[in-house]
Amino acid sequence: MYYFDNSATTQPDSQVMETYLKVSQDYFANPSSVHKLGVRSHQLLDAARKQVSEILGFASNEIYFTSSGTESNNWALQAIVDHYHDLHPNKSKLLISSIEHASMTKQFDLLKERGYQVELIPVDSQGFLNYEWLHSHLDNQVLLVSTMLVNNEVGMIQDLDRLTALLKQFPQVIWHVDAVQAVTTCLDECRHERIDLLSLSSHKFHAPRGVGILAKRSRIENQPFIYGGGQEMGQRSSTENLAAIVATAQALRKMSEQQGQIKQKLGQFNHRIRQTLKENGWQVHSPESGASSHIICASFAPIPGEVLVHAFEAEEVYISTTSACSSRVRSDHATLRAMGLADQESESAIRISMSSQTEATEVDYLLETIHKISRNLKIGK
Amino acid sequence: MYYFDNSATTQPDSQVMETYLKVSQDYFANPSSVHKLGVRSHQLLDAARKQVSEILGFASNEIYFTSSGTESNNWALQAIVDHYHDLHPNKSKLLISSIEHASMTKQFDLLKERGYQVELIPVDSQGFLNYEWLHSHLDNQVLLVSTMLVNNEVGMIQDLDRLTALLKQFPQVIWHVDAVQAVTTCLDECRHERIDLLSLSSHKFHAPRGVGILAKRSRIENQPFIYGGGQEMGQRSSTENLAAIVATAQALRKMSEQQGQIKQKLGQFNHRIRQTLKENGWQVHSPESGASSHIICASFAPIPGEVLVHAFEAEEVYISTTSACSSRVRSDHATLRAMGLADQESESAIRISMSSQTEATEVDYLLETIHKISRNLKIGK
Repeated sequence: MYYFDNSATTQPDSQVMETYLKVSQDYFANPSSVHKLGVRSHQLLDAARKQVSEILGFASNEIYFTSSGTESNNWALQAIVDHYHDLHPNKSKLLISSIEHASMTKQFDLLKERGYQVELIPVDSQGFLNYEWLHSHLDNQVLLVSTMLVNNEVGMIQDLDRLTALLKQFPQVIWHVDAVQAVTTCLDECRHERIDLLSLSSHKFHAPRGVGILAKRSRIENQPFIYGGGQEMGQRSSTENLAAIVATAQALRKMSEQQGQIKQKLGQFNHRIRQTLKENGWQVHSPESGASSHIICASFAPIPGEVLVHAFEAEEVYISTTSACSSRVRSDHATLRAMGLADQESESAIRISMSSQTEATEVDYLLETIHKISRNLKIGK
Repeated sequence: MYYFDNSATTQPDSQVMETYLKVSQDYFANPSSVHKLGVRSHQLLDAARKQVSEILGFASNEIYFTSSGTESNNWALQAIVDHYHDLHPNKSKLLISSIEHASMTKQFDLLKERGYQVELIPVDSQGFLNYEWLHSHLDNQVLLVSTMLVNNEVGMIQDLDRLTALLKQFPQVIWHVDAVQAVTTCLDECRHERIDLLSLSSHKFHAPRGVGILAKRSRIENQPFIYGGGQEMGQRSSTENLAAIVATAQALRKMSEQQGQIKQKLGQFNHRIRQTLKENGWQVHSPESGASSHIICASFAPIPGEVLVHAFEAEEVYISTTSACSSRVRSDHATLRAMGLADQESESAIRISMSSQTEATEVDYLLETIHKISRNLKIGK
């Protein structure tokens, strides 16, 4: 089995799962309980929060654990945006990049119903934000700008320094960054101090599923999205999923410690995969520079993406057409469309995605498979 | 270690955790991925949903997996109530029992801001709903009635047949039941067909944390609370926490299969604990009949509940003052207050809570400890 669908989800790391299991047995008490078992659980929770905060360059009381990246994005766009709008009723414009994940875009109708003006920041043919457009649309009515650090379908990394420069004259604009795909190769960029809100998801970096992170600068006022027992400093209720949180902190620390090696390794793999695809007549959509090396989006038009996925599957290689979240509801390559790609190209697109644990032998096999499939499909073309 | 704080959380069952671990390794692929690994994950998810639906007496497509009981309660009171109100603008009254968990009560301010009229159904001195009050307040403006099947602080079981009879003339009223504490001894009652919305939480019955269930009859229209990739039949987005969901289904099945034995065992334990408390001069607040045997709330006034908790803790017995969710924010015995208990009594209240795994030897030790502590405290009184 050769798994190259790591942007959909990663296989939990065995050491991290040992931690999960240990915590779920030895620290099973509710962190809100007043007895000493509860106090021990709470101390462990605090330690995990501190660890995550240090890696991300936030203060410890700026880290909130949620259940998923999706929940973090919903919290940001709904409760926090609403609260800020109550404080500043003149601000009702949301500038959101046109290549966001469904956990952002599917909220747009609701936001519009609530009276917000949602404007999409266009991207160029390589998927990079149109900074001129953004510059000309920033004004005092803008409440929030939301961008993706690493795009989940094509892998572009947006330039946070340039965005920061643009936002300089607008310190009151909330800047949200979806960094769900950024942990593999761009963890350092998450530390950018102008970022106000940052969303992460555990299962994208070999941690157990069910933990999201919303990092929120204390300068931004909070407003709960989920109400109840007052966990997470009163801002996000429900009994803390302690074992998964501690495991997530450990997995994030591993990613942080190994970031240099991971980048180097995946950079080499990326180069080899790209070369092989091109040699075999594929069109590679992920830009040569300025993209995360763990994601490669390419097409072999006019063969449909699903046919390609199944051709790879027949060789025990698992890739995807697009974001897993959209793939069951028929291929919808929102990012490629925003980049202006022709339908035939985008409908043929597949995504090969690696992780920190991808090995050279797996890449070797992938390359052979690309050769083989391309040869067979050329005959069929 | 003698753990009697099972209403706060339970220790994960070792067999259930084996399942969790197995699924998280062998079925790690994203259930939304189109390749066969994703399809296998999705089939397993469907099987878990079917299993849960059969236990709860709902259809398979009426079971939604969330991240917690709290999220389920927020979904019900926010998105579903809002949507129903849009369809029926004349309905804006919410009749909610006065003994609900914080995951319900902390939403009241938000609901009032949104224009709803929240009215609390009073309870009698034993904690049972005042049916006359409810009868006189039900009218065509009522949108939702919300009750708790088993109260989390004192254990009262509300009479679902009586509630059903009252609701007979109002088929359009949505009836939500928080059954988070009901799985241990009242799982069969969850199957009551008049219930429209039912909330459950995995970690209350020895499953891993991080899974909630919202069972919703298809006759009630849905509206997402968390938007994104369209998982859970388009109604609750974010990559499914498959391993925890499958483990939860297994834990629920165990509870269902063993329900008769559990009830009998805990009924005996409850009787012994009650007797011992009374013999030693405690006041037991949990009603003698009509309460779940796994929860006993009692006080030893004027000794404060926290002092009692720490006295038990010194003997390695872990109990709580009140709902874990409220216990860190100073003892707030909402249920006992609603029952009209004097402050001195309620401030002295403690909760002893058992689970399906509580053993006779543990109860023996608890009884000895009650004797010992009572003796010591009487001298101190």
